[in-house]
Amino acid sequence: MNSHLPEQRDLQQDIRPDDLDRLSPTVIIGAGLIGASIGCALSLAGVRVHLHDKMQSHAMVAAARGAGVVGLPPGEQVKLVVVAVPPQVAAGVVLRALKRFPAAAVTDVASVKAPILRTLQAEGVALDRYLGSHPMSGSAYSGPLTAAPELFADRTWVLCQRADNPEWVVDRVAALARLCGSRTVRMDADQHDRAVAEVSHLPQLMASLTAARLQDVPRSDLALAGPGVRDVTRIASSDPRLWRQIITANQVPVRELLEAVRDDLDQLINSLDDPEAITRVIEKGRQGVRGLPFKHGRPAEDLVSVVVQIPDAPGSLARLFSDIEAVGVNVEDLAIEHDPVREVGYLAIQVAPERVPVLRAAMVEHGWALRS
Amino acid sequence: MNSHLPEQRDLQQDIRPDDLDRLSPTVIIGAGLIGASIGCALSLAGVRVHLHDKMQSHAMVAAARGAGVVGLPPGEQVKLVVVAVPPQVAAGVVLRALKRFPAAAVTDVASVKAPILRTLQAEGVALDRYLGSHPMSGSAYSGPLTAAPELFADRTWVLCQRADNPEWVVDRVAALARLCGSRTVRMDADQHDRAVAEVSHLPQLMASLTAARLQDVPRSDLALAGPGVRDVTRIASSDPRLWRQIITANQVPVRELLEAVRDDLDQLINSLDDPEAITRVIEKGRQGVRGLPFKHGRPAEDLVSVVVQIPDAPGSLARLFSDIEAVGVNVEDLAIEHDPVREVGYLAIQVAPERVPVLRAAMVEHGWALRS
Repeated sequence: MNSHLPEQRDLQQDIRPDDLDRLSPTVIIGAGLIGASIGCALSLAGVRVHLHDKMQSHAMVAAARGAGVVGLPPGEQVKLVVVAVPPQVAAGVVLRALKRFPAAAVTDVASVKAPILRTLQAEGVALDRYLGSHPMSGSAYSGPLTAAPELFADRTWVLCQRADNPEWVVDRVAALARLCGSRTVRMDADQHDRAVAEVSHLPQLMASLTAARLQDVPRSDLALAGPGVRDVTRIASSDPRLWRQIITANQVPVRELLEAVRDDLDQLINSLDDPEAITRVIEKGRQGVRGLPFKHGRPAEDLVSVVVQIPDAPGSLARLFSDIEAVGVNVEDLAIEHDPVREVGYLAIQVAPERVPVLRAAMVEHGWALRS
Repeated sequence: MNSHLPEQRDLQQDIRPDDLDRLSPTVIIGAGLIGASIGCALSLAGVRVHLHDKMQSHAMVAAARGAGVVGLPPGEQVKLVVVAVPPQVAAGVVLRALKRFPAAAVTDVASVKAPILRTLQAEGVALDRYLGSHPMSGSAYSGPLTAAPELFADRTWVLCQRADNPEWVVDRVAALARLCGSRTVRMDADQHDRAVAEVSHLPQLMASLTAARLQDVPRSDLALAGPGVRDVTRIASSDPRLWRQIITANQVPVRELLEAVRDDLDQLINSLDDPEAITRVIEKGRQGVRGLPFKHGRPAEDLVSVVVQIPDAPGSLARLFSDIEAVGVNVEDLAIEHDPVREVGYLAIQVAPERVPVLRAAMVEHGWALRS
């Protein structure tokens, strides 16, 4: 592994004419990985960003990464406050921010939303300027060192918008997500918490349970570790102080999922000598993975196959793929199909449905035989 | 995702003067991902490779990828046979290969070794020319389409060498691993099977159990999936036909590990409201991941920290990392350290012990303040 600093990729920022006025100055409270990365993206867009962290060294490192300046501006000037602190303390920081920055929209970016909202509601203060949100990003690393403006590029940013939020508050938080390169999605706090239990908190705990087993493994055996176990356990390096807060805060949906896993696990243990049962476990996992959206947000099952006959000649596959790439079609999946009668191989190329006509035309033009 | 074809990286092949004579011609039986990739690496080195697969289209695709020629040479000329078929049928194919290729060393590359050896031993034939091996690679994909010569580069290749193997047999199988760019490791079949249960088969099943839970998730929730769940579930796309064979063949060590996971899972479910218990689960996982060797085979705990004071100035971290990279030192891990008295931040840079002197010298030369 080289330096953990992510590559500085080009960030496609959708900066609208009034965004800089709408958000400058912004205050970010909490200069960990998430807060510092938001600061980097906003600063890159031209927003004036002020950083505050009770760990002065974190704010300093974030500033050195280009996330903004250390220290707070006069309270009444602030347009947006981003609270990027652990979930258990987020409600308290939001409450203080609402008082200290009386003209600001206030959002928090914690990974669990309903408990924070309930704590705030129990305080009996006006919450119209508060709109909880959650950028679906993060990393196995924590702290501002690995901060980068593109951390949220092409990611989903959930806005837990409520009926009492005025339009200007929604506009500011949406502009924040937009300048970070994210797509916004609206859902209420409870739906959000169920969804993150499913796609984030359960996978995190499963990675930790898997990695925990490696503790008892002799070093000579660990030498056999390949990329698979690294993938499965990568997020197990995450910060325990953060995760204890997330899991405790979201324990109801998390418990339900863990119990379902325990049922599956019991069944697996009881049928390890039955190849059909193993097949069902692996097949169920394959189906689950296929439901995960690709980068462009489309699940795998929506893809369409174009089937090309495979010539038995060296270099022919390289030529095929260069012909496909020349027309700019993304290959989403590949499978070999076999014709048992004619002893001929076919390659099924899976692509997005709207790309089928251009791919078929290009294949025919270059002399490839298609199966209709 | 673009085409699944791996990048054609430079493959550092350690080709010794007599390797081509030692291995030409080689027969590969089974032209799936593993067999075809071995064929690509050997062909690239200059070995004459013949491919055989009962699925003619697989051998054809492998040949089109550059893995060798389709069809078998005269049996007595063959120097090495690589059996790259699923574990349940490997012993039978090895037996037939020993008869058909009377002057060849025969290896199989199946993921489970002890059951194959026991089956062969029960046949009562001479096994001196058989040496089971296992390249620790693979991928979520299967079939020759994604074959690439660098699949085994920098990976570990286990040789289950036995006292009755003559030196020339060991030499040929070791040359095979070397031409594929792998490091060889010797261990007996039983130790191998326990090790792969720990670092491969358990992670595979955990990925499948995690992915299986995604089946019941509404599509709107799946939109929140980020890179973490993708990492954890990536290998869950693996081929069920292959894995049912691997797991069934290695069920004794796999069962033991799954039962340990069940104990951990039960404990986790019973303590979801206890932040300390959650911390212990996550911390145990972190410790487990730290034991995994880095690329160069060294576990994380052997690293040494060089601690640099962090200046509070924009761009200073970029300059620091460019100074580190200029002397060619790999940064293996990073952490921020805090001085509570002086309000100064420090960056702990973890590197291999033998790189410490050159890094310290370079830091001092470029004006960075080190903490001794």
